[in-house]
Amino acid sequence: MNHKDTIIALATASGIGAIAVLRLSGPNAIQLVAGNFQSVKSKKSLINQKSHTLHLGHIMNGKRIIDQVLVSVFKNPNSYTGEDTIEISCHGSLYIQQEIIQLFLKKGCRMADPGEFTLRAFLNGKLDLSQAEAVADLISSDSEASHQIAMQQMRGGFSNEIKLLREQLLNFASLIELELDFSEEDVEFADRSEFKKLIEKIQLVLKRLIDSFAVGNVIKNGIPVAIVGEPNVGKSTLLNALLNEDRAIVSDIPGTTRDAIEDEMIIDGVSYRFIDTAGIRETKDIIEKIGIQKTFEKINHAQVVIYLFDAEKYKIKSDLLKLELEIIKNKYPKKQLIIIANKADTITTKERKNIETEIPEIILISAKEKSGIETLTNSLTQLVNIGALNNSDTIVTNSRHYDAMLKALKEINKVEEGTLLGIPSDLLAIDIREALYYFGLITGEVTNDELLGNIFANFCIGK
Amino acid sequence: MNHKDTIIALATASGIGAIAVLRLSGPNAIQLVAGNFQSVKSKKSLINQKSHTLHLGHIMNGKRIIDQVLVSVFKNPNSYTGEDTIEISCHGSLYIQQEIIQLFLKKGCRMADPGEFTLRAFLNGKLDLSQAEAVADLISSDSEASHQIAMQQMRGGFSNEIKLLREQLLNFASLIELELDFSEEDVEFADRSEFKKLIEKIQLVLKRLIDSFAVGNVIKNGIPVAIVGEPNVGKSTLLNALLNEDRAIVSDIPGTTRDAIEDEMIIDGVSYRFIDTAGIRETKDIIEKIGIQKTFEKINHAQVVIYLFDAEKYKIKSDLLKLELEIIKNKYPKKQLIIIANKADTITTKERKNIETEIPEIILISAKEKSGIETLTNSLTQLVNIGALNNSDTIVTNSRHYDAMLKALKEINKVEEGTLLGIPSDLLAIDIREALYYFGLITGEVTNDELLGNIFANFCIGK
Repeated sequence: MNHKDTIIALATASGIGAIAVLRLSGPNAIQLVAGNFQSVKSKKSLINQKSHTLHLGHIMNGKRIIDQVLVSVFKNPNSYTGEDTIEISCHGSLYIQQEIIQLFLKKGCRMADPGEFTLRAFLNGKLDLSQAEAVADLISSDSEASHQIAMQQMRGGFSNEIKLLREQLLNFASLIELELDFSEEDVEFADRSEFKKLIEKIQLVLKRLIDSFAVGNVIKNGIPVAIVGEPNVGKSTLLNALLNEDRAIVSDIPGTTRDAIEDEMIIDGVSYRFIDTAGIRETKDIIEKIGIQKTFEKINHAQVVIYLFDAEKYKIKSDLLKLELEIIKNKYPKKQLIIIANKADTITTKERKNIETEIPEIILISAKEKSGIETLTNSLTQLVNIGALNNSDTIVTNSRHYDAMLKALKEINKVEEGTLLGIPSDLLAIDIREALYYFGLITGEVTNDELLGNIFANFCIGK
Repeated sequence: MNHKDTIIALATASGIGAIAVLRLSGPNAIQLVAGNFQSVKSKKSLINQKSHTLHLGHIMNGKRIIDQVLVSVFKNPNSYTGEDTIEISCHGSLYIQQEIIQLFLKKGCRMADPGEFTLRAFLNGKLDLSQAEAVADLISSDSEASHQIAMQQMRGGFSNEIKLLREQLLNFASLIELELDFSEEDVEFADRSEFKKLIEKIQLVLKRLIDSFAVGNVIKNGIPVAIVGEPNVGKSTLLNALLNEDRAIVSDIPGTTRDAIEDEMIIDGVSYRFIDTAGIRETKDIIEKIGIQKTFEKINHAQVVIYLFDAEKYKIKSDLLKLELEIIKNKYPKKQLIIIANKADTITTKERKNIETEIPEIILISAKEKSGIETLTNSLTQLVNIGALNNSDTIVTNSRHYDAMLKALKEINKVEEGTLLGIPSDLLAIDIREALYYFGLITGEVTNDELLGNIFANFCIGK
């Protein structure tokens, strides 16, 4: 990639709107727009306007007016990219958007690659790499939790902590390497007890961050909830009641839900992935057997299991139901379990009391009539009280960071081991350099084109 | 509608983008945002910032950061609406867009109605009514021609001309009404020969503008082109070749295209509506007979007729084809006719020459192999050389304006008649006032809530 040219892209969502914003960034951005802009009020060229000012005027293609626009001027280094930047706020027709982009492509702009504006912000030191990555997370965040994590990461988050530790480690590395120059004199510039304290601190921080990944991952992708129960107890209807739309197929033929289907829902700012399964009852139908196999797989991956049965059939099936519940409890002792009796609208008060006595933790609902659903969602929210959301702990959500932290910890452990074994300073220095490398990968002090390419390819164009 | 409160809406296209722009307008716009904004650099409140300046900072909900944003400040009257206006350029996630809108709704903003920003611009005298209407046209324009007309109208276009004539007419009306006060003295304040000249000028302008409506309508909605020919000559394939997509059903069963389908295409900046028809051959099939009936209806509404036949079958069917061509030419002498022989890839050079000799105006194409399509589109462009596009004539595209102009002309003709018949000044004055009313309707000097409601209901929200 060439980062010395001027790029252009639509920055707002594609489609027709009242207005659309086109962004140009690069050494010629202001000059290019100035040459095709006629201000309504000011006679001064855009080139001579102050940074962070707005100008009403017309984008001209020669003598032809393309549109009346509002132009924002940002002068390097005070822009998102750190380069000279112009934002053109034009009328939101597709025709106008295209005409203006075509005009500036002809004048020497290049169409921006995905994430190229943010890449330039990183290359110009406006953001570190983990902050740049958070920008993409922020744009795709769809719940309060994922939004908060992305926002925290974009504002520095753990990368400030990592950077500080890296600096301290780098400092020790330098001192230890200095010792090598004086190796014949047997001096110690690096205070070994201070060094040991630093290693311990780094281990502590890394372990905490690595542990946070599981939580972060769940927040980012939604907490997996498996809905388990016999065919025809209303799993799909429950899912629909939760989703408030008809995504899953609902029919009266037992065993209709052959394939596990998933859907996402946000409850009280937390994202869930509900997974409809084929139940676990015994069957001779081969296709259904595969479905049951899949049910167990899905439970394996779920954090929460909702066990659902038909309240109307409790009388005749209570033994079987209790057996199935035992199977789940024994097989998955660590999973959060919610037990629900559906079709509560079809039973008598006496039957109701009987169920509540035999299974005290039961929640009685009617998915069809949408009663009891709130009790269920409240129960979910209570169960999945992710403490991390309520304090200011930093959370790692990016698997690239997770991977680099695991490797950095491994190297730090080696360094600790080395100091305990009293290995020579030159070998110790090598291990420290390795650890520093992985620290650098996280915040972007160490990069290469492939890494950057992978990261920014996932961005949308215009960011 | 209350126009004294502060409104908010998403101004950019809905959906996820790199950024999104939210617009607030009204007396409290700046104050509201200032109360929920923390600048990164400046300690000055947004309230004390200059108009047309940009500010980086955070939108805060209490102590919680919703997003890092760029805020544009526009101070009344120097904004689109003429009111205090803030534009918030935030990260383009749906979650953030919603959070910020919700925040300001809670703080006392109201969700803007469709077109309400432009309505306020009109009410505050920033635009006249025809200019305001042009804003909606501009946003929905999808071709160079429709864009140019909308742009011209937005920049004043015919409304300046109408306004000037209205003023002159108003002047005469006042003088004539003044005469009424001195009616016993038999004075003439209004120079009758000057008045006659003005009436003639108004008639001329109105007639020109009324005539332009036909052209304007075609430009706005696309030039209707009927594709006519026997079943199975490749009408749908031709349509697909022109459209570059598989919209029409293509099959080898003659008579597949029972229903007329339409599609739009822009060629060299001009919009066309291609209408596929069922052909005009004799048939006993009732459904097909209805199709043929529709073919004639469609030709009636078309400006251009493309007559298409199968080059391979020319040998055996030439008499029938010539007959059909005669029917079309006789029935529709004023329609532009383009004659095309399709499947040119299936005939010999000799056969080709024979066709070209017998029908000199023929265009030989192969819709399937997409050869000759450009000759056809060039021929279309030449045929439909809308002179109006190449000069600066103002064009009326809005049926509301057209209607008002027709009525204004009728009243002006009455005034002319009245002066010729020498009717009393008081009756003349009444007719002039009627004409003035219709003039005022166009530019918005005369309005009512119902009229404004109708006009702005067609706008998108956020404009």
